[in-house]
Amino acid sequence: MSRWAPDARERLESAALDLFVENGYEETTVAQIADRAGLNRATFFRHFADKREVLFGGEDVLAGLFADGIRSAAPDATLTECLQAAFAAAEAAMTPHQRAKAAKRVLVVAANSEVQERGLLKHARIARSISTALRERGADELTARLGAQVGMLAFSIAVERWMGSEKDEPFPAHAAAALSDLRVRAAKLDSQPRLSA
Amino acid sequence: MSRWAPDARERLESAALDLFVENGYEETTVAQIADRAGLNRATFFRHFADKREVLFGGEDVLAGLFADGIRSAAPDATLTECLQAAFAAAEAAMTPHQRAKAAKRVLVVAANSEVQERGLLKHARIARSISTALRERGADELTARLGAQVGMLAFSIAVERWMGSEKDEPFPAHAAAALSDLRVRAAKLDSQPRLSA
Repeated sequence: MSRWAPDARERLESAALDLFVENGYEETTVAQIADRAGLNRATFFRHFADKREVLFGGEDVLAGLFADGIRSAAPDATLTECLQAAFAAAEAAMTPHQRAKAAKRVLVVAANSEVQERGLLKHARIARSISTALRERGADELTARLGAQVGMLAFSIAVERWMGSEKDEPFPAHAAAALSDLRVRAAKLDSQPRLSA
Repeated sequence: MSRWAPDARERLESAALDLFVENGYEETTVAQIADRAGLNRATFFRHFADKREVLFGGEDVLAGLFADGIRSAAPDATLTECLQAAFAAAEAAMTPHQRAKAAKRVLVVAANSEVQERGLLKHARIARSISTALRERGADELTARLGAQVGMLAFSIAVERWMGSEKDEPFPAHAAAALSDLRVRAAKLDSQPRLSA
């Protein structure tokens, strides 16, 4: 296959995940990843800054989709509805194929704290993209930051449930349920923790 | 000074911060840090796993203080009161001396994404410590995770305000105000973002 194949990025991601799961993240080299994908090292570095990045390319896409979703929500949308619009916009990136990849990624990330650190940086960037989009709608800074944190927590919970579910339920259903679960609890911060359920 | 001086850790932290600000994080070596502190490299590595850790030693202390505070809150404490107890317990670590150090650290962290990543890992660990302590009080998993996120956001906002304030106001006052600001907003997730202020 040509190294200019339009799906080079996708092939590199799949090859990397397979190798990380098979041989370990530390043990896998960029050369091996490129080789498994039928490409060369230079092509790898055209798509990813380093070995860690190959695990988190989807995060940059998500940051954009979330922000687009919030921007396109109805003018009178509530904060919750803005977050729902973000998750709906992310549906394109949350396919059954992505779900299979996400499961492998969880294994890799859990085993390596250096990789966790990069994941958290991406997570923080997505949160910032949400809070920026909420600010553009007129939210004050604290509301925007709170909305971003609640949104990211809902997203994390939804991804966990989506990955743990038996059938291929569409992602937005999980996201809407997680957000609703958090909304109920956010309204009860002045209750005893054990009564909040 | 003896390298067994009980304040070796503190001296290494101060020396490191000064050197990072003066010469840059990347450019500073562990040997230089130890030298400035009047200690040797071996002593450095007895206290810190690597150069990045010297910036975040306080975070491990905070994780413990927050959890202790939540555990010692009154049996009928609300979730908000549990978080307030966490911040009150952290007061010991939030001295004017720490405030001066924190200001230097902000400069270093802002300039280096590798350092940011480590900071986020520490941040995530503190959040986990809060959610674990809330779980022990009977909170369900989602309530505990939401409480941890709201708590960490309140803490971040309080630190920003504490560092930006002219006078040496005690930290818990900032923390209580930030938490109260977030509580009001958390109750309004079903309002339009611009109406939430």
